[in-house]
Amino acid sequence: MPGSSSIPRDVSKLKFQISVSLDGFVAGPNPSEENPLGEGGEQLHEWVLKLAAWRQPHGREGGETNASSPIFEAATADVGATIMGRDMFGGGPGPWGEDPWQGWWGEEPPFHHPVFVLTHHEREPLELEGGNSFTFVTDGIESALTQAKQAAGGKDVAIGGGAEAIQQYLSAGLVDEMLLSVVPVLLGGGRRLLEGLAPDLGFEQVEVVEAPGVAHLLYRAA
Amino acid sequence: MPGSSSIPRDVSKLKFQISVSLDGFVAGPNPSEENPLGEGGEQLHEWVLKLAAWRQPHGREGGETNASSPIFEAATADVGATIMGRDMFGGGPGPWGEDPWQGWWGEEPPFHHPVFVLTHHEREPLELEGGNSFTFVTDGIESALTQAKQAAGGKDVAIGGGAEAIQQYLSAGLVDEMLLSVVPVLLGGGRRLLEGLAPDLGFEQVEVVEAPGVAHLLYRAA
Repeated sequence: MPGSSSIPRDVSKLKFQISVSLDGFVAGPNPSEENPLGEGGEQLHEWVLKLAAWRQPHGREGGETNASSPIFEAATADVGATIMGRDMFGGGPGPWGEDPWQGWWGEEPPFHHPVFVLTHHEREPLELEGGNSFTFVTDGIESALTQAKQAAGGKDVAIGGGAEAIQQYLSAGLVDEMLLSVVPVLLGGGRRLLEGLAPDLGFEQVEVVEAPGVAHLLYRAA
Repeated sequence: MPGSSSIPRDVSKLKFQISVSLDGFVAGPNPSEENPLGEGGEQLHEWVLKLAAWRQPHGREGGETNASSPIFEAATADVGATIMGRDMFGGGPGPWGEDPWQGWWGEEPPFHHPVFVLTHHEREPLELEGGNSFTFVTDGIESALTQAKQAAGGKDVAIGGGAEAIQQYLSAGLVDEMLLSVVPVLLGGGRRLLEGLAPDLGFEQVEVVEAPGVAHLLYRAA
């Protein structure tokens, strides 16, 4: 039956969610191996770490439910594949070595779908528990997106981070939807997300949601 | 009667409202005398220029009423004095000259209360119609604030702009409340508002409002 196994590309969006400070930073100044979020950067994520909707898939108990919960759930529920930069996967800047890094997330990462890692260093795919697979893509962001959309089976593709990977997709005009979660802190320096982007990248406001300690701003490509 | 004529300083807030692009700019790149808002900067103000609540005090007819209207009205209704930088008042960078500049607003500016202009060039106060007065303050932002609070008679003091004046008050930790109106455009460059500010400036989120084509984020000093 023609079409039954084809990918409905028109409904599969490329999207990301990221927490950003009032002054536009997604990580604070002076990031280090011990503190990759930079000085003060951990404050950007407090709102999500206390959500039950975040804690449960990360194997932690408790947590609260508030106006951020449906936002977080909607951003993650319909995702069939994730793309991430090498920094987010971890393992240092060089080649993979003989006892290769398996990511930050232990035996069963919280994705439960195929993940595509942007890297310059080839490596065989990695299969972990719970439907988690990591495919290492060395031929660019468009190749990673094509592979991720195929793997997502009609669901959305999320850019997990970091900021550099997101910026590459934004610059290329490939992002369909972005959720900026604005946290009322000033970091005074660090890594900006929306920098050096051409003004002809058009976005329209879809939804604005007030939640405890964070403002969620949802935009889609115009 | 003691206290009857004293200024209730604890309820008189210093506040500002400003429109900001998604990438954090309050004016676009390459501002000029003809286009002081820089390339694309006029897009930041479209939401307010079409409000009846803005048009009426500026002597224009028509306009619409939407979710931005009460936000704009609340930001302006309880203001008893305005502080602005020399750029916003206009008149060029030098001294005032013999036929001095009277501001951009004609015979009856839309403030209808005392305005204090931060400048390096002394000048006698200027009285215009409709309760508009302009006092030129050469001895710094704290002096201007003291004079403005006195003149406001218990009402709030607004910083009218531009970005430099706002930054000076933010840096000095003197701002009580700020309303950022985030417009879904990318300017790609220009003048940032929240730049070089110390992380110990604490703000807490007060209110988040979704309106057509703009997200209003209200914060107060923590």
